[in-house]
Amino acid sequence: MALGQGARAVLRPLPVGGVRFEDSGFWASRVAVNAHTSLAAGYEQLHASGVLENLRLAAGTAQGAYHGKLPFLDTDVFKWLEAVAWHLQTAGDAAPELARQADEVIALVAAAQDPDGYLNSYVNVVRNGERWADLPSGHELYCAGHLIQAGVAHRRATGLHTLFDVARRFADLLVDEFGEDGRRVGYCGHPEVETALVELYRETDERKYLDLAGRFVDLRGSGLLGDRPFGRRYFQDLQTVRETRALHGHAVRALYLSAGVADLYLETGESDLIEVLRAQWDDLLRGKMYVTGGTGSRHRDEALGDAFELPADRAYTETCAAIAVMQWAWRMQLATGDATYADVFERVLYNGFLAGTALDGEHFFYVNPLQVRPDSTLGPQGRQRWFSCACCPPNVMRTMASLTHYFATFDADGLQIHQYASASIRADVPARMGVDIQTDYPFDATVRIEIPAECAGEWTISLRIPDWARAEAQLRLDGKPIDVEGQDYARLRRDWRGGEVIELELPMQPRLTVADPRVDDARGCVAIERGPLVYCAEQVDQDADLDRLTLRGAARDGERVDIGGIPVPTVTIPAAHAEAASTTAWPYRQAGEEPAPPTDAPPTTVTTIPYFAWANRDYGAMRVWLRV
Amino acid sequence: MALGQGARAVLRPLPVGGVRFEDSGFWASRVAVNAHTSLAAGYEQLHASGVLENLRLAAGTAQGAYHGKLPFLDTDVFKWLEAVAWHLQTAGDAAPELARQADEVIALVAAAQDPDGYLNSYVNVVRNGERWADLPSGHELYCAGHLIQAGVAHRRATGLHTLFDVARRFADLLVDEFGEDGRRVGYCGHPEVETALVELYRETDERKYLDLAGRFVDLRGSGLLGDRPFGRRYFQDLQTVRETRALHGHAVRALYLSAGVADLYLETGESDLIEVLRAQWDDLLRGKMYVTGGTGSRHRDEALGDAFELPADRAYTETCAAIAVMQWAWRMQLATGDATYADVFERVLYNGFLAGTALDGEHFFYVNPLQVRPDSTLGPQGRQRWFSCACCPPNVMRTMASLTHYFATFDADGLQIHQYASASIRADVPARMGVDIQTDYPFDATVRIEIPAECAGEWTISLRIPDWARAEAQLRLDGKPIDVEGQDYARLRRDWRGGEVIELELPMQPRLTVADPRVDDARGCVAIERGPLVYCAEQVDQDADLDRLTLRGAARDGERVDIGGIPVPTVTIPAAHAEAASTTAWPYRQAGEEPAPPTDAPPTTVTTIPYFAWANRDYGAMRVWLRV
Repeated sequence: MALGQGARAVLRPLPVGGVRFEDSGFWASRVAVNAHTSLAAGYEQLHASGVLENLRLAAGTAQGAYHGKLPFLDTDVFKWLEAVAWHLQTAGDAAPELARQADEVIALVAAAQDPDGYLNSYVNVVRNGERWADLPSGHELYCAGHLIQAGVAHRRATGLHTLFDVARRFADLLVDEFGEDGRRVGYCGHPEVETALVELYRETDERKYLDLAGRFVDLRGSGLLGDRPFGRRYFQDLQTVRETRALHGHAVRALYLSAGVADLYLETGESDLIEVLRAQWDDLLRGKMYVTGGTGSRHRDEALGDAFELPADRAYTETCAAIAVMQWAWRMQLATGDATYADVFERVLYNGFLAGTALDGEHFFYVNPLQVRPDSTLGPQGRQRWFSCACCPPNVMRTMASLTHYFATFDADGLQIHQYASASIRADVPARMGVDIQTDYPFDATVRIEIPAECAGEWTISLRIPDWARAEAQLRLDGKPIDVEGQDYARLRRDWRGGEVIELELPMQPRLTVADPRVDDARGCVAIERGPLVYCAEQVDQDADLDRLTLRGAARDGERVDIGGIPVPTVTIPAAHAEAASTTAWPYRQAGEEPAPPTDAPPTTVTTIPYFAWANRDYGAMRVWLRV
Repeated sequence: MALGQGARAVLRPLPVGGVRFEDSGFWASRVAVNAHTSLAAGYEQLHASGVLENLRLAAGTAQGAYHGKLPFLDTDVFKWLEAVAWHLQTAGDAAPELARQADEVIALVAAAQDPDGYLNSYVNVVRNGERWADLPSGHELYCAGHLIQAGVAHRRATGLHTLFDVARRFADLLVDEFGEDGRRVGYCGHPEVETALVELYRETDERKYLDLAGRFVDLRGSGLLGDRPFGRRYFQDLQTVRETRALHGHAVRALYLSAGVADLYLETGESDLIEVLRAQWDDLLRGKMYVTGGTGSRHRDEALGDAFELPADRAYTETCAAIAVMQWAWRMQLATGDATYADVFERVLYNGFLAGTALDGEHFFYVNPLQVRPDSTLGPQGRQRWFSCACCPPNVMRTMASLTHYFATFDADGLQIHQYASASIRADVPARMGVDIQTDYPFDATVRIEIPAECAGEWTISLRIPDWARAEAQLRLDGKPIDVEGQDYARLRRDWRGGEVIELELPMQPRLTVADPRVDDARGCVAIERGPLVYCAEQVDQDADLDRLTLRGAARDGERVDIGGIPVPTVTIPAAHAEAASTTAWPYRQAGEEPAPPTDAPPTTVTTIPYFAWANRDYGAMRVWLRV
């Protein structure tokens, strides 16, 4: 998921390896769990679910029926391979078993490829090789996109060509089929191949891949996908991309498409594209994103809702949609340099995305609600090891394995730090630049940034002041305060000698957040935020029925509690039991006839924990929005 | 849908024809639209959708492919026939065209029947006659149930045997297949046949039909349906009926099953059944019913939600679920005599049910939300003429055509009036009893009840005081007040001479209703009710953006407005424009940082109309719950 260098990028990604998390830090620990637990669990699941066997069926080296029902199960393999590739880049020779597993799986993928480059086990096994017969729902180009991304990642991370060559041969076939002089006119019901093709262009400098991505974007909205049960909006086929100023339909499809369009802009610089992307982004933020950064309100068609349609209990907020927002936000940030994209990236990263995986690294949420009612029968009750549609777990794995890519950028002027973690960051272009960061972020207030001696010279370091901290953040350079009030990036240009220490102090007191009254489930409620973290209350931490509690006072830091091996800061708020109405037989009554509060209910305290840590203990009632 | 006489009924339905709506009244007009417009439109749709042609295909008198995709399309025909039958009972010889159409359609049904009595066009045409191969989803017994109900209705209403004999032959086959000594053990994924079989027992006095209904009820919950994607709760197969104290899963299935169990109780008197039904009813009312009487919160699996999971915009609240509640409530009322069932019946009738049909009688809602957001993309945008799954329209038609059946009952003591309409009501058992009612209910306060001379004698008239009126209702007999405070039924036993006039005055001032704070979408809001009607605000009546209005004052009666030919009373409330937050780019902000109200926004007034009349003019934003 790391990006190559976009021609029109305002900010540029560091080369792979430019950011290294330090072992003691929050993210180093999360990434290690991904590397050591999730990737191994993923390898097991690829075997257990039969998706590797499907490749053998396609290769003709095994006999039997296709495993699973969905046409895109090959992508479980491709996304896992991409994740392993990024990890191998970090681990080098220290992960021989994963390297061996990757080679084994790549051999299976290569064997399943048809002589002309086509590769799709579902089509070859279930559809008897009938290709491109169902562009709206068949996911063939979507699968190709994930193969291409995995191939590019594997080459970038390891220098090996084994998977890359397979992917490129398929991409060449796509150009022959769907290019301007190709045999077909069409595009995929599930966008994804667009970002992949732009990346392949960056990796190869072959214009034809960029042109094909552009062609898919140009054609989209011409109605070629037909009007399936959920309608043309479902797969972004009602309007052309350049007409689309509001996002609708299946959330992951809509967001992957916007990420692909942003990639296209990064290479072409077409102003219409960035203008429409900004409008779409504004539409998303205005009323289609949860406070957790989650998107996608509807279970029925996995769709973004209408503006302000953001139910808490029935939030769909697929983990993949969080990842899609991160991909799009990152590309927008490269394209514009605006802090808003890093702000939203942070919100999604620490909340909507991170909650999708158990802290043990081997249980996953597909759906990430903001509320679970007491005794809810909604399933599944807690995170699962795998899914019959297992798009999310390997998507998490590849994101975690490449997470360093999203923390910093460079430009002609210097280095930009967008997210904070204990890390060592280095860049050699335009000069040797770098910082060493020590922090207990996201839990603690202080980010300590040291300029290493090897990075002496004149360059600018830009430090993002998160949106939630902009009024109170404090910055010191070698102990001397620097005024950063209201700035989105603190930009320090110095002739660094090495050894300078910059301290960024961010306000970590709990904040109470309210929502626009049109966000119905949040009306009369607050969410608790602390630093970049959104908090929630779980039943297991309360001494009364969570749904009967009403906040009555100020939020303050509580004890740290150990959840999944992490000592997370809690936030507590005084509360009262709700009215006795909760026991009545009919939940509606005449206004003004509210029953008196029970006199025997003692005051209590609500204890909240970071949302990302929920459902790691007992699975029960949970709320992000708490009544006041 | 009229019921025969249940052996254990506390109250008994009047014979068919016992209640006649008077031409000038609200319900006479609605029923006339059903008879003259809806039934004709239904006949056209039976042709246009191909469901009649499907019967010809099954009979071998036509060639071609099955029309539609669903396995239960025969029920469109059966429900329409049931509706026509009830109408013919009222209209007698005055509807020769409908009678001719019914005979034509009955002939098609009869011709499609197999020699052994089996009848299902989908199975015979699409599944090559492979019967009972898919009890979880095949709907074969469901279809049989609707055929039986139509056959019973046709015989009861017209005295004709043509359809009844077809139905009974199929029922005899069901006994052979699924009875205690039958060839199979199983039950249908969609309950419905249970009520039908009990009715057939009442019509024939053949115990085997009752026994078969009982067997289906006894077996249910043993897991024979397997664990389909939505789980065993979806079709009420997780627990036995006698263990089921909370309702879960597909709303219509759950409610039809409870109605069938109530029918079984009405004949067997098994105390375990009525006890569990009361618990289920309490569960439904405690947190699974909307203020409109709608039930079923979830689009994805058309299911009842968890307790208090009652979203306004994403309410599913299928029209058929409203009908199912009415069926169940009516049976509970017969079983117990408790006013609560008539109270809920009234709420559903005037709101959740009535809103499902346009006032023109030929456009229908399948889904009945309590809120439409501005510029919503949720479809369909307004009522439709028909649906690919057209369960609702003919279900409305048969309910409307038999609506008189639900208004009154009798017992050894006298006559009970449960719902109010201008009507003439007569019963001959145990004595000649009856009343003539004049009222502009549900719009006006006064119900005038006269005892006709022909009904002189000593008997009791019981008049339901609606739950919402119980504190303030006033009753006068020949002008003299009678204390009815707190009573659910005012019971007047007199030796009537004829000519006595009873006047019931119900409080018709607008009421503001609030919800339990766990009903999230309603928090910080009120609903407006007036008499039995729930109100809503439509954008078309407002002079500002509906979603930005906040109520600020008392509700009062407004002008009457003509909607669909009905002069409906409006209710108005002073309001203010909401805060300027509605234009911000991000809908969350720190508590206490609410922007000041815009100073240039003039005060305004929100105008509300009865919910049943919404979406009969411009289709746009609508809210039942209004912010205060």
